[in-house]
Amino acid sequence: MLHYPVENLDATHAKEWLRCFQRVRQASETLCAPLHTEDYMVQTMPDVSPPKWHLAHVSWFFEAFLLKPFLQDYQTPNDAYDFLFNSYYETHGEPFPKPLRGTISRPTVAEMYQFRAHIDAEMARLLNDPPLDRLGEILSRVEIGLHHEQQHQELLVMDIKHILSCNPLHPVYRDDVRERLLEITETRQVQTAQQWHRYTAGVRLIGKDYSVAEGPQRDAGGFVFDSETPRHRQYVAEFELADRPVTNGEFIDFIEDGGYQRTELWLSDGWHHIHETGWQAPEYWQLVDGRWHQMTLGGLVPVDPDAPVCHVSFYEADAFARWAGARLPTEAEWEVAAAELPVAGNFVENDWLQPVASDSEGHEGPHQMFGDVWEWTGSAFRPYPGFKPLEGSLGEYNGKFMSGQMVLRGGCCATPGDHIRDTYRNFFPPQARWAFSGFRLARDA
Amino acid sequence: MLHYPVENLDATHAKEWLRCFQRVRQASETLCAPLHTEDYMVQTMPDVSPPKWHLAHVSWFFEAFLLKPFLQDYQTPNDAYDFLFNSYYETHGEPFPKPLRGTISRPTVAEMYQFRAHIDAEMARLLNDPPLDRLGEILSRVEIGLHHEQQHQELLVMDIKHILSCNPLHPVYRDDVRERLLEITETRQVQTAQQWHRYTAGVRLIGKDYSVAEGPQRDAGGFVFDSETPRHRQYVAEFELADRPVTNGEFIDFIEDGGYQRTELWLSDGWHHIHETGWQAPEYWQLVDGRWHQMTLGGLVPVDPDAPVCHVSFYEADAFARWAGARLPTEAEWEVAAAELPVAGNFVENDWLQPVASDSEGHEGPHQMFGDVWEWTGSAFRPYPGFKPLEGSLGEYNGKFMSGQMVLRGGCCATPGDHIRDTYRNFFPPQARWAFSGFRLARDA
Amino acid sequence: MLHYPVENLDATHAKEWLRCFQRVRQASETLCAPLHTEDYMVQTMPDVSPPKWHLAHVSWFFEAFLLKPFLQDYQTPNDAYDFLFNSYYETHGEPFPKPLRGTISRPTVAEMYQFRAHIDAEMARLLNDPPLDRLGEILSRVEIGLHHEQQHQELLVMDIKHILSCNPLHPVYRDDVRERLLEITETRQVQTAQQWHRYTAGVRLIGKDYSVAEGPQRDAGGFVFDSETPRHRQYVAEFELADRPVTNGEFIDFIEDGGYQRTELWLSDGWHHIHETGWQAPEYWQLVDGRWHQMTLGGLVPVDPDAPVCHVSFYEADAFARWAGARLPTEAEWEVAAAELPVAGNFVENDWLQPVASDSEGHEGPHQMFGDVWEWTGSAFRPYPGFKPLEGSLGEYNGKFMSGQMVLRGGCCATPGDHIRDTYRNFFPPQARWAFSGFRLARDA
Amino acid sequence: MLHYPVENLDATHAKEWLRCFQRVRQASETLCAPLHTEDYMVQTMPDVSPPKWHLAHVSWFFEAFLLKPFLQDYQTPNDAYDFLFNSYYETHGEPFPKPLRGTISRPTVAEMYQFRAHIDAEMARLLNDPPLDRLGEILSRVEIGLHHEQQHQELLVMDIKHILSCNPLHPVYRDDVRERLLEITETRQVQTAQQWHRYTAGVRLIGKDYSVAEGPQRDAGGFVFDSETPRHRQYVAEFELADRPVTNGEFIDFIEDGGYQRTELWLSDGWHHIHETGWQAPEYWQLVDGRWHQMTLGGLVPVDPDAPVCHVSFYEADAFARWAGARLPTEAEWEVAAAELPVAGNFVENDWLQPVASDSEGHEGPHQMFGDVWEWTGSAFRPYPGFKPLEGSLGEYNGKFMSGQMVLRGGCCATPGDHIRDTYRNFFPPQARWAFSGFRLARDA
Repeated sequence: MLHYPVENLDATHAKEWLRCFQRVRQASETLCAPLHTEDYMVQTMPDVSPPKWHLAHVSWFFEAFLLKPFLQDYQTPNDAYDFLFNSYYETHGEPFPKPLRGTISRPTVAEMYQFRAHIDAEMARLLNDPPLDRLGEILSRVEIGLHHEQQHQELLVMDIKHILSCNPLHPVYRDDVRERLLEITETRQVQTAQQWHRYTAGVRLIGKDYSVAEGPQRDAGGFVFDSETPRHRQYVAEFELADRPVTNGEFIDFIEDGGYQRTELWLSDGWHHIHETGWQAPEYWQLVDGRWHQMTLGGLVPVDPDAPVCHVSFYEADAFARWAGARLPTEAEWEVAAAELPVAGNFVENDWLQPVASDSEGHEGPHQMFGDVWEWTGSAFRPYPGFKPLEGSLGEYNGKFMSGQMVLRGGCCATPGDHIRDTYRNFFPPQARWAFSGFRLARDA
Repeated sequence: MLHYPVENLDATHAKEWLRCFQRVRQASETLCAPLHTEDYMVQTMPDVSPPKWHLAHVSWFFEAFLLKPFLQDYQTPNDAYDFLFNSYYETHGEPFPKPLRGTISRPTVAEMYQFRAHIDAEMARLLNDPPLDRLGEILSRVEIGLHHEQQHQELLVMDIKHILSCNPLHPVYRDDVRERLLEITETRQVQTAQQWHRYTAGVRLIGKDYSVAEGPQRDAGGFVFDSETPRHRQYVAEFELADRPVTNGEFIDFIEDGGYQRTELWLSDGWHHIHETGWQAPEYWQLVDGRWHQMTLGGLVPVDPDAPVCHVSFYEADAFARWAGARLPTEAEWEVAAAELPVAGNFVENDWLQPVASDSEGHEGPHQMFGDVWEWTGSAFRPYPGFKPLEGSLGEYNGKFMSGQMVLRGGCCATPGDHIRDTYRNFFPPQARWAFSGFRLARDA
Repeated sequence: MLHYPVENLDATHAKEWLRCFQRVRQASETLCAPLHTEDYMVQTMPDVSPPKWHLAHVSWFFEAFLLKPFLQDYQTPNDAYDFLFNSYYETHGEPFPKPLRGTISRPTVAEMYQFRAHIDAEMARLLNDPPLDRLGEILSRVEIGLHHEQQHQELLVMDIKHILSCNPLHPVYRDDVRERLLEITETRQVQTAQQWHRYTAGVRLIGKDYSVAEGPQRDAGGFVFDSETPRHRQYVAEFELADRPVTNGEFIDFIEDGGYQRTELWLSDGWHHIHETGWQAPEYWQLVDGRWHQMTLGGLVPVDPDAPVCHVSFYEADAFARWAGARLPTEAEWEVAAAELPVAGNFVENDWLQPVASDSEGHEGPHQMFGDVWEWTGSAFRPYPGFKPLEGSLGEYNGKFMSGQMVLRGGCCATPGDHIRDTYRNFFPPQARWAFSGFRLARDA
Repeated sequence: MLHYPVENLDATHAKEWLRCFQRVRQASETLCAPLHTEDYMVQTMPDVSPPKWHLAHVSWFFEAFLLKPFLQDYQTPNDAYDFLFNSYYETHGEPFPKPLRGTISRPTVAEMYQFRAHIDAEMARLLNDPPLDRLGEILSRVEIGLHHEQQHQELLVMDIKHILSCNPLHPVYRDDVRERLLEITETRQVQTAQQWHRYTAGVRLIGKDYSVAEGPQRDAGGFVFDSETPRHRQYVAEFELADRPVTNGEFIDFIEDGGYQRTELWLSDGWHHIHETGWQAPEYWQLVDGRWHQMTLGGLVPVDPDAPVCHVSFYEADAFARWAGARLPTEAEWEVAAAELPVAGNFVENDWLQPVASDSEGHEGPHQMFGDVWEWTGSAFRPYPGFKPLEGSLGEYNGKFMSGQMVLRGGCCATPGDHIRDTYRNFFPPQARWAFSGFRLARDA
């Protein structure tokens, strides 16, 4: 992703952004290329959206926030799309009910792709000849629109996995996924015991500002969501952090030790939730002939004991931590540790589409913090001190969800590598499991 | 439909049935021809099934009840179809959950049509060279399988209407539907006032036997579902029956007279149901600029005051009748009247796909009893005296639904004309509205 | 209960009715005498009403339908009672929500008894000096009010049983109940095998008219609810009826034969219902050390194999009948058989408060048709041909419930003996079990 | 409340604690003295418990955690109480289902008081002659048991208010409540405009340790719940805090400005919640002749514009703050401000049982932080760094609720004055309103 410069903008920048736009837009379509038309239609649960909807909604975003406000003479192909493909922007207009997204067969997939092509052409028209007096505003919105589309690229992978795995025929996403996954699993089989790494106490700078640079030890600028701002001080006490996420093998130990049956390990809400749902293992797991297997985008494979455990809820992560005599890190602790590390890992570009064990090279201190699995933290998703939402409907982007959700950090195997950073705050309700969500342990020093 | 002879069967009969089989099978595919692949996938509510599922399920029926038991060396294309496409035959195996039918993208529509082609080819193989010693059993099951498929043809029309109408884009089924409907509506605009026709009291023969003929005034034989048997005596008191169904215009009078607000008109269950749902008019109706319109397979059109009211629940039919100082006929009363009439009317072959006013020709006594709208009766769907369900899993066909449902009679504009008869008992829960359901009035003499 | 004469009424009749009124009113209070104040308050499920509510509601009935319309200068002690103690008369005013009846602590029990005393005194004032020109109307309403109160006496017994049985302390209704029950159980231990009794076919008169007498073989007149009218003809085919209800011992055989696990025995609604609820035996049953016990008003006692099975739903009765190769009788069949029998049996006056085996005396033909258990029939509760509801709000008494319910016949061990008759139609939803509901078998001849 | 000394304990201390025990126990009974037996039984919603249950449960606490483990030869009056009166201690045994607490009529109220008397007598026996070697443990549990009982005293007031207010008869708690409330309201009518008070940035000590004293500016020791520990460092940025809670008058301005209709003011969860519930004003408010009134323990009274708004959810508090261009304080901010103030205010001892305007005396800086209304903060209820739950079942006291709840601070008009402190963390789900919950505003400096 380009970094968005704050001054001295001219038409050259718009053209650079157009190329970036085209690259990100193409990535969404590449992700969906293996799908059949029928797959584009499915909504397996209210949290999941049909792939067709995702591809249309991210296009709607550019229409609603760029083309309609900034491109003279812009014509929408269909007025009703504004209602159908608005996700949750209530100030923009009442959105179509989310749980019914799978009931909408028209526009067809082909018409949806025509809508995308229309948006792409019109965006090219806008960025090839932008109104220069509003260029800052325009490029800022292009940037958020592309990060938005990248978020939906990750959601597409999560949702496609759910859509295929609910089918008793066990269809695969692509024929080569399974082999690629088994191959990398094979080479990553050695997993050392978890090590603790200690961090000293002190006042730390957490989050990031909209402005460019903050110091020599950090990247110069770059995109940031409103929820990551402002950069502010937090006192972080001395703590220890595990060098890697909890593995499937360790989680199997928890299961076999009666973890799902021991009330003292669970938060009250979690205990009730696992009783209502009957959960006895992570999402996508099943016992086959006494051995744990899991659904992947390549179909059902044996659980790799060395890979990070994935598709667990916050409740399960929290219960495991209590069982292990540890706790989840706060998001500040996680960020302090991550700030020292390069943003590298198993991202969607690896095309493994599943978390895998870290490679066997010796690591000093924490690793695998980026990619593989989103890591549940012990922090509720609440505004940072001094937080201000964006103006207008974009103010609904993150701020209104700061209730009832927990923060996850670090991205996963479905995240575009240039979408993530140490300050990035993802969030899900504590019972969500269909994301690639795992966790690592922390403890008081 | 052929009539199924009970003796002296030979290979010629099997070939005749094969031609019949091919005709009915083709009719299902013709109905779905206007659909896009995406339309085949949609389940708008648990009662509705995706068209793809319908087409697969009726094929499964022939596989499960004919090919597997009777065709040597029969190979299923996919073992999982037996689970996916079983509707409710619990003794056959646990069926896939009905409300999730819309979440299954594979088999694709193309694969489903391959499954149909496979079934068709194998059925041809069976009927071209049938085991003659089991021919009676085989042809009997072919016949029920074809009537079963015809039932799903009607469901396809109902469900496609629901699927399209839930879409804010208001897509139409075929481009010519609207024009055809407005054309016939135009020619049927004169609707005379409702007339009452009196029937004398006496013991009547109701229902039909599996055996061939019962008397000179009835057809010689013909198919019958288990629920219509046996033919038995009922005492029917003197009564009067309206000569035609209640019209849209009359139902608008009911609405405008506060019908939906007057508690004294409603059954207790109905009163609670309309409060929970907020119903203020029949399904598919909406006010546009102060005038009632309704969704049809040709899109939104003004309500024709002369056509039979349609898409009302039993509760609404019952409340209207009370408002009109009348009542619904019992199913025996309806059958007594219908037995005197030819089985003719506005069926799916008319391709109007919507009830229309009867033609302006003078009628003596009741008419429009077949076709246009299924007519709610005041009778609960319960077994006739002496009722015996079929053997084996086919015994689940009707018998197990004889609780909590009301009987409707006469077929509708989506029913194949050779599928209906005077003794035919359809049934729906009292709150169902997505069928083409209307009603006519009766009263005590 | 007095029989209500239709003409030549004078003040003497009013005084006779006053004595009858006082007797029935006293019976309600006698039933509640063993309760603690706390027991009067409890609503264990929406179907159950707190005893305090029952006692107040039946008094409200006299206030709303007699004192306010007919007694000059009548003053209600509290205007809000008209809202709080209206059960379901929507045309009278919106009733207080039924599921919240247990949340109303005021009026207190003592205040409720003061309300009763007030009603009693005012009713005495009315009946001691009635407006003679409206005496027919008044006495008619007194009679329905007393039958209404008797219905609630039975509900009181059912509800008190549920209230006490839900309490883990297993409180008893009265200390002597258990001993009385075990005593009578002891003397009734011989139960002969079920015998079938045949009835010939023909047109039968079913139901009863409001008018006095109908023929020499029937009682001259007597009270009748609107739902039992009018007396009308039904053709009843030849059938056989079991001489006694199905017993606990026979129902245990059904359980032990896997009755609750065999899908082919169940109506579809019933099969889903037992899966949602987990039912494996009748209500109030539990296994203690491998033997079936049941909660009674005297606490937990072993199930008596010879007593009629009780607290089963229609679904369970229907499944048992299918298992036994039989069916439930229609309500017309039941009535044909009952019309020949005296109205005698185990009623509330026996004070056993539980069904017991019939005495060992030889019986010719069916017995135990009155008392012990309400018997589920195979008939849906629908209006008789020619049915007309009462005028005004009393028209809501039965008519509006003629949907979604099944008919039960014969009264039970909680029914006042002078409240029941052969034409009496009770009704409950098919899943209800907290009534004293059992069944007997029928079969086609 | 006594302060619990950690060393040199002897029998004298036990006797002092016995007097304290007797005083707190008596206070619970005094609160319930105005109730009728019927009031003790009511559970108006799952969150509310019947007063009888509260009084029994707090007694069970002493039985389960003191008498059974420490008093030799202790006999429980009823083994089943251990099941019935356990609230949520899953490690102690499966508790009786909370939503059914209102269905338990036995033990009666009188028997429950006998249970209390039994516990009181046995606790006296224990504390008059304690096993000196375990005295520290015993007195520690007595102390937590008494704070536990004080928490239920507050719940009793909240629940009694709900129980009485749901009754259409509008019963009052005591006859003098209304007059007392109107009297104090009268004298407190002058409410000055809200003032902001600024606090400088820095690392602050938040929370409290189990150990005795922490510095000259704080109380020497005192009780603390596990959730308040340990005392730890937090960086608190510069902020401003309102000098008083938001008033009813200000909240009416919010309502009249369309606050409940403006989606941009609400968290997403809150927006959906107010649409599901239809909330248009705080709990207990209703319009009477165009003027806002509210239910109090003295019945319906006009809303006092100068008193703190009360019975609002976190969602409403958060929406109001956004409307006012401010935010809720974090719990650390609140505690920093409160640490400077004496613990004084409108507590349950004032016996006004309703928040009232602060007195007209000039205040420097924030006031009314203790008493009147619990103040919603913007902080989710999560463990402090270094938090450790208590050993054994008491570890369930607070820790397992640290999910899905928001922190409230400062106590209310129903809180015992010696139960509250600056570090006290109360918590409720964001939609809860039946507590005396209000809020004050904060803003970034």
